[in-house]
Amino acid sequence: MKSVDLIGIGMTKFGKRPDKTGRDLLAEAMQEAIMSVDKGIDPKKDIKALFVGYFTPTLYEHQAHYGPLSTEWLGLTGIPAFRTESACASGSAALATGYFAVASGIYDLVMVAGVEKMTTLDTPGVTDALSVAADNVFELPTGITFPGLFALMAQEYFEKYGGNWEDLQAVTLKNHYNGSLNPKAQFQAKISDIAQKIAIKKNVTFKDEMDFLKSKYNPMVAYPLRLFDCSPISDGASVAFLASEEISSRFTDKPLRIKGIGISTDTIALSGRADLTTSEACVNASSAAYEMAGITPDDVDIAELHDCFTINEVILSESLGFFKKGEGLKAAMEGRTALSGDKPINTDGGLKSKGHPVGATGIAMVHEIWKQLRGEAGKRQVKGNPKIGLTCNVGGSTASSMVFIFERSEK
Amino acid sequence: MKSVDLIGIGMTKFGKRPDKTGRDLLAEAMQEAIMSVDKGIDPKKDIKALFVGYFTPTLYEHQAHYGPLSTEWLGLTGIPAFRTESACASGSAALATGYFAVASGIYDLVMVAGVEKMTTLDTPGVTDALSVAADNVFELPTGITFPGLFALMAQEYFEKYGGNWEDLQAVTLKNHYNGSLNPKAQFQAKISDIAQKIAIKKNVTFKDEMDFLKSKYNPMVAYPLRLFDCSPISDGASVAFLASEEISSRFTDKPLRIKGIGISTDTIALSGRADLTTSEACVNASSAAYEMAGITPDDVDIAELHDCFTINEVILSESLGFFKKGEGLKAAMEGRTALSGDKPINTDGGLKSKGHPVGATGIAMVHEIWKQLRGEAGKRQVKGNPKIGLTCNVGGSTASSMVFIFERSEK
Repeated sequence: MKSVDLIGIGMTKFGKRPDKTGRDLLAEAMQEAIMSVDKGIDPKKDIKALFVGYFTPTLYEHQAHYGPLSTEWLGLTGIPAFRTESACASGSAALATGYFAVASGIYDLVMVAGVEKMTTLDTPGVTDALSVAADNVFELPTGITFPGLFALMAQEYFEKYGGNWEDLQAVTLKNHYNGSLNPKAQFQAKISDIAQKIAIKKNVTFKDEMDFLKSKYNPMVAYPLRLFDCSPISDGASVAFLASEEISSRFTDKPLRIKGIGISTDTIALSGRADLTTSEACVNASSAAYEMAGITPDDVDIAELHDCFTINEVILSESLGFFKKGEGLKAAMEGRTALSGDKPINTDGGLKSKGHPVGATGIAMVHEIWKQLRGEAGKRQVKGNPKIGLTCNVGGSTASSMVFIFERSEK
Repeated sequence: MKSVDLIGIGMTKFGKRPDKTGRDLLAEAMQEAIMSVDKGIDPKKDIKALFVGYFTPTLYEHQAHYGPLSTEWLGLTGIPAFRTESACASGSAALATGYFAVASGIYDLVMVAGVEKMTTLDTPGVTDALSVAADNVFELPTGITFPGLFALMAQEYFEKYGGNWEDLQAVTLKNHYNGSLNPKAQFQAKISDIAQKIAIKKNVTFKDEMDFLKSKYNPMVAYPLRLFDCSPISDGASVAFLASEEISSRFTDKPLRIKGIGISTDTIALSGRADLTTSEACVNASSAAYEMAGITPDDVDIAELHDCFTINEVILSESLGFFKKGEGLKAAMEGRTALSGDKPINTDGGLKSKGHPVGATGIAMVHEIWKQLRGEAGKRQVKGNPKIGLTCNVGGSTASSMVFIFERSEK
């Protein structure tokens, strides 16, 4: 099996992008990815295949067949192209299948991409579109949607391990803070900024922040989760280039090596799970990835986790083995997952603040790892010259989980 | 790159299956695939990952995330799973990505599958669902749907190379004949049987068949294509197992070796093409597959082509290099593509007669190659001990094309 290197990556700004279709967003992300390749890349000559993740283009754009649609729009007509889907892990599925292709030796360089153009629908429309990630036979007929599914996880977590919704705001505050340092983020405001604006007050205390989060400006969505516990509806795209070890030095002397990959599945309906406070798919996916990379959770310097809802960042941080079961919430409260902590998580603001254009998320996570490991993350750069980064993406209520481990390798 | 063997395959009966959901159909196909493995397979122990092609589950079943949905329903929860989509080539995309994974060495045995449950919608609903394979920005606003797109190809073919709709009925008659010998086919009736039934006549001549095909029972859909030129709306699934060369003999002494694979794309809208009578994607995909396999078109003993509309079988038979440009229609009329011809095509009845549950089609094509190359095709077995089989699947108006070459290898 050939080793595979990440040699370049780009993403659009996430948020409402009324002027852009899905294919436009892909073109924008690709342009940035091209510019990120240290020694340059000739798309027409170098890219041998395309893998593009998009969860529900059919519902957002009355469009599927995004493989040839993308190759045509991006000036790559003729090369092999595939669309992958695994709900919110659709972009990671593109990364995984593209990885398989390069690792096999059939293509020496591929483009992996992710995109979602969600703001064509109103909020009930998006809620309906997202619901196809749950089980339409055994779960949706109860009337539940995703905020409700993750609210059940939060309820069980608090019951089992203690803690409460106020504690969980450590994640909200941290991710909004990180997002405020990320020019690509949909929300570039700290909770204190928002609270300040509303209170017309100069100096905002922690109590003021919490008062804001408990106010009418942060309405209940599904108990105990409020609006600011939920990731937003977003448009966006992300694009990366993967090259085999034999040729990657033609493109950069500072690639990221993909050291480990792990994929796993769980029951699609929550009702099939023994324990809602652990993501078994994430446990199994990360175990496989750690084993392949020959590392332990302690070796991971920074990580991007799927915080579609605040509670999920906590659950995944435990399922990945960063913290013991029941101790993830405490770790977040103690600032261990902050930019300055010993295990920085979602340094780009996470889905919560950066935005969550579903199909784009998997590769956007990798974008942050690329920036941080190469020391190019600007104001949000973590200290200590991080060397190993991990992304953990999930689909639905973590019925699919995909974990990748990257290592900086300077040649 | 590891060589990859097909070690077992199964499919459901195609047609209206009102009693079955998509996941039920997958289970039925998997059961047959398990039974087809000569030395037996233990799904839980042996299957390391799943790749499932499904074009538009969102529209047919309000369901996506078919990876974990399938692993759960099929008793495989935990293993990696991916959904692939490339319009009508979605099943072939599962085969290709599964092939990459086994060829890379990351998984030694994978399940590749395809499914489509179409009869949940009425005909206008299905027409709308299929239309997402075309370009929603530059093509669909003209009002055209797929019968119209392929009708344009037929018009240009007749204008450029001569021949007419009556000549094209050679494909209709052949594929209905072949389908009449296939217990899995949606339509198991020769045109003569249907004509006989309607005319209440004992001996039906070729003229009677043509009279039937020109009658009100075969209405115009999009000039010059009539109803019997179109593949039907179908439910169905197909499942295959791929194993690396190192372990395949544990499962069978008569695997099919995947000798060549080629994938290519073309402009998604027909308006971007210089010539509607050639599928450039098929030309490029098959060239790559022939080169990898080290063979020429003449070496192919039997082939399964994507006859979503009769004209496409003719066009693909030329684009694959079986016949010179403009000579495919004549070849069909001369019986060269019949069961007894020198280049049998769609011996199972093709999409036309066997049915076309979109996502299932790519792997169902391989099912026929498996049967024929192993001498297990019963009444429709071609003579001469065929050794090399080819499948050519396409998506949309051939904007994506995926070609696989299989060789019987007896150990």
